[in-house]
Amino acid sequence: MKTALIQMNPTVGALANNADRIISKAWEAFNAGAGLIVFPELALSGYPPEDLILKDHFCGDCEALLTRLGKEFPSEPVIVVGTPISREGKKYNAALVFQGSEIIGEYRKMLLPNYGVFDEKRLFEAGSQPLILDIHGKKAAVHICEDSWAPSGKAVQSLENRNIDLLINLSASPYHRGKLLNDRINVLAETAKKLKSTLLYCNLIGGQDELVFDGASMVFAPDGSRIARAKQFEEDILYFEESPSRKEKPLPDLEEVYEALKLGLRDYVNKIGFKRVVVALSGGIDSALVLAIAVDALGKDRVASVTMPSQYSSSGTLGDAHEMAKILDIEFHEIPIKGLYNEFKGELSKIWGKDKTPGLAEENLQARIRGNLIMALSNEYGWLVLTTGNKSEMAMGYCTIYGDMAGGFAVIKDVPKTLVFELCRWRNEQTGGIVIPPGIIERPPSAELRPDQKDSDSLPPYEELDPILEDYVENDMGISSLIEKGYDETIVRRVVHAVELSEYKRRQSPPGVKITPKSFDRDRRIPIVNRYRN
Amino acid sequence: MKTALIQMNPTVGALANNADRIISKAWEAFNAGAGLIVFPELALSGYPPEDLILKDHFCGDCEALLTRLGKEFPSEPVIVVGTPISREGKKYNAALVFQGSEIIGEYRKMLLPNYGVFDEKRLFEAGSQPLILDIHGKKAAVHICEDSWAPSGKAVQSLENRNIDLLINLSASPYHRGKLLNDRINVLAETAKKLKSTLLYCNLIGGQDELVFDGASMVFAPDGSRIARAKQFEEDILYFEESPSRKEKPLPDLEEVYEALKLGLRDYVNKIGFKRVVVALSGGIDSALVLAIAVDALGKDRVASVTMPSQYSSSGTLGDAHEMAKILDIEFHEIPIKGLYNEFKGELSKIWGKDKTPGLAEENLQARIRGNLIMALSNEYGWLVLTTGNKSEMAMGYCTIYGDMAGGFAVIKDVPKTLVFELCRWRNEQTGGIVIPPGIIERPPSAELRPDQKDSDSLPPYEELDPILEDYVENDMGISSLIEKGYDETIVRRVVHAVELSEYKRRQSPPGVKITPKSFDRDRRIPIVNRYRN
Repeated sequence: MKTALIQMNPTVGALANNADRIISKAWEAFNAGAGLIVFPELALSGYPPEDLILKDHFCGDCEALLTRLGKEFPSEPVIVVGTPISREGKKYNAALVFQGSEIIGEYRKMLLPNYGVFDEKRLFEAGSQPLILDIHGKKAAVHICEDSWAPSGKAVQSLENRNIDLLINLSASPYHRGKLLNDRINVLAETAKKLKSTLLYCNLIGGQDELVFDGASMVFAPDGSRIARAKQFEEDILYFEESPSRKEKPLPDLEEVYEALKLGLRDYVNKIGFKRVVVALSGGIDSALVLAIAVDALGKDRVASVTMPSQYSSSGTLGDAHEMAKILDIEFHEIPIKGLYNEFKGELSKIWGKDKTPGLAEENLQARIRGNLIMALSNEYGWLVLTTGNKSEMAMGYCTIYGDMAGGFAVIKDVPKTLVFELCRWRNEQTGGIVIPPGIIERPPSAELRPDQKDSDSLPPYEELDPILEDYVENDMGISSLIEKGYDETIVRRVVHAVELSEYKRRQSPPGVKITPKSFDRDRRIPIVNRYRN
Repeated sequence: MKTALIQMNPTVGALANNADRIISKAWEAFNAGAGLIVFPELALSGYPPEDLILKDHFCGDCEALLTRLGKEFPSEPVIVVGTPISREGKKYNAALVFQGSEIIGEYRKMLLPNYGVFDEKRLFEAGSQPLILDIHGKKAAVHICEDSWAPSGKAVQSLENRNIDLLINLSASPYHRGKLLNDRINVLAETAKKLKSTLLYCNLIGGQDELVFDGASMVFAPDGSRIARAKQFEEDILYFEESPSRKEKPLPDLEEVYEALKLGLRDYVNKIGFKRVVVALSGGIDSALVLAIAVDALGKDRVASVTMPSQYSSSGTLGDAHEMAKILDIEFHEIPIKGLYNEFKGELSKIWGKDKTPGLAEENLQARIRGNLIMALSNEYGWLVLTTGNKSEMAMGYCTIYGDMAGGFAVIKDVPKTLVFELCRWRNEQTGGIVIPPGIIERPPSAELRPDQKDSDSLPPYEELDPILEDYVENDMGISSLIEKGYDETIVRRVVHAVELSEYKRRQSPPGVKITPKSFDRDRRIPIVNRYRN
């Protein structure tokens, strides 16, 4: 039996469109000789559908579209599709198994993840029954994502000693850095071994708000070895009959992250329907990386840029901003903000006096003037504004709300600053040569909001800061554990204080691509009013 | 036996402070003769603690503080305190029962709410055992909030036919309009009747981010009748021995909503530690209501205001803004924005040309200039900016991101526009006379961002809009159900389209007080990339 794992990219809520694509891809696989055709988890609704599941028509609309599938196909292929269903007023994350117009099986996900970015217990009831079917002479069972992720959980247990030949796993497993090699492969291999079964893992691909699904659908042999793998970050159909099969190599670390950022951005822009994006180029490394990703993801014609120098901008940064726009051959504008800044100060001096020493208010004012200008371009031309803040800044609140934080998508908000440097260097090493002028990478980071400002005036060196942030934010270590681990106490306390104090800013930030095990946004839900500091 | 229900207002994460207050209030009740002293759900950590529960030290820090309680007290009073605990690596939402230094009972919440604003399955394991204790000769059981809310659920079932005299319910039940009279009383009375037991319901009070806990702790007799009730929206100790007991009257509808808004705002400001707030007064009804609430909640000395007229501001609105500040006797500034607006247009005309017809970009520009100015005052003086958008606007996206949406707390973001009118009229009828100039209430609503603009140019009349929004947003009705109900199809489609299209704005909006059964924020989790429209 030839099997097809269809690694597709649905759009959340675009039900008719998703159904059309499911049908055309199923035909493609059937015409290529597949007798078993598998789609990912909730391929019909897109993942995560969040509270759309609670809307009164949603699950019914999904099922109505699936009946079309049954009517279209002859009875040879068995087709497994992930869809939400409603049964007696309860909603399930389900897989329906079609053979011609007949539904020969219905499986309801047993293990509902409700941690990290997942809220499935909010939306679904858990299933309780395994589904074991004869598919063209093979004894096959169905799992949905999490079910196979707990080798000692009840979904795996329910299949033990049942002598199944095939475990079909429909997944919507979001990406983070290294998850494929460090987590997924091990746990799926263990499940395959435990059940002594071939395991077919069919994962979604595509970006959805802050999540990226990375594909890399796989086939595991009953001994846990991997015998086939589809591409990462691309739609793909993985056919599997017997070895030797196609086995795509996993991307190297930095390329994997870069591709995740590209896909997350591209899908956000395209699925919402923006024609173009705009990036404010400061001449600094963050906006340079965002611009490179945008041009790689969307092509140069869909990217505009604007630089908005003040009296504190150096000729170096300004020159580098110009140069980068020239290298990438993109639309580029320059709007100086000095006049506007002086006008604002003039108006405000009527309240705070003419002799006031410039401080935070004046710094943020500059960032917010830029925010206003770029939003005006966005409103006029329908461009999506990409913000350029990195994870280290977002964590520490080293950014201006309504200023540089103003925009629709924050491409690198989950990328720590040290990784920003690595990604820029990596990008410059790729074919086609340097796209980020070396001055941008070498110049010490500065917000350029006052004379001779450096990030290091306000923040610990990034090499010191980023590991503390990783342990505090991603690993939830407390102050005492961090100090025990050997970090400097003064710096630890300063970092924890800054992170907690700036929760209110993050709450108003645009979404951005999750690439770490714990991003901000839905992954880390911390109260704004919060006096806890251990 | 005299019982004390201590309706307290903890601050999330302020563990040492909360513990101090628990101890001093327990002494107060003990000195007043109480033999059973009850605190609300998670009184020690504050509610909801969200992902603080996941931090490695948090539950341990809570329990360490509770051991102090045991050491302080003689063995006469039995004290029941809500706290998170950690047992063998699992976290529970628990109640510890102290008698002197001995812990005589530990109860773990069985029913974990994971809908609406609640995420308890993300944080806690569910308990499985009832707790029945002898307390001064009475057979008493403990429940935590949701446990008693499902009269046929397993927490109630586990106590059936056990002949308990007392059911002690520790709650953190958030407010929405009418919940006390329409929901809570009925369900708790049913539980009391089912168990033929006296029911002691001890609820939290206070604001936490967008939630307000309204207190109104109650005692129900075994026949379901209410025999005692504490105050709403205030800390209070409800003593109960036998009838006749104190029985506070529920507040009338509009006063209840107004008090919820006041408490939500006051606690946000005070718990974070802001000394003052600032409101941008447009001369319109929304900012007038927010200003009145702010002055009532914080006192006139803690409220500043600023009006920022443009060439489109009418003399009527400007005069009313002045008048209202004068009536309330608050700090008032005026900063005209015409010069800044022209300066911005001048800079931008270099890109979009001098002859461009003004449109959305110019309208938003004005709102964002105001956003910049008020944020500059916020940065300089440490004032919290209150935004003034109502729920109808937030739903329809009839507001400017980084403009009038810029600020730290959105007091009336869950108040539909028709209710804004009702609340203003109600406030003017209270003792002390008119605080909102009648012109503000009578003038047709306008954003005043272009000549002769009216809200009704862009939106259906609010009397038509608000019921549709309630059915679509709060009741999750689909387009076809709405049309079936009798709403105009064209308007329904326009409303649904606008609501879904503006999700990205709401995602970047500041928190505000939840007063309806379903607010935006955590109550309604809809994807930004979302093509579903039925």
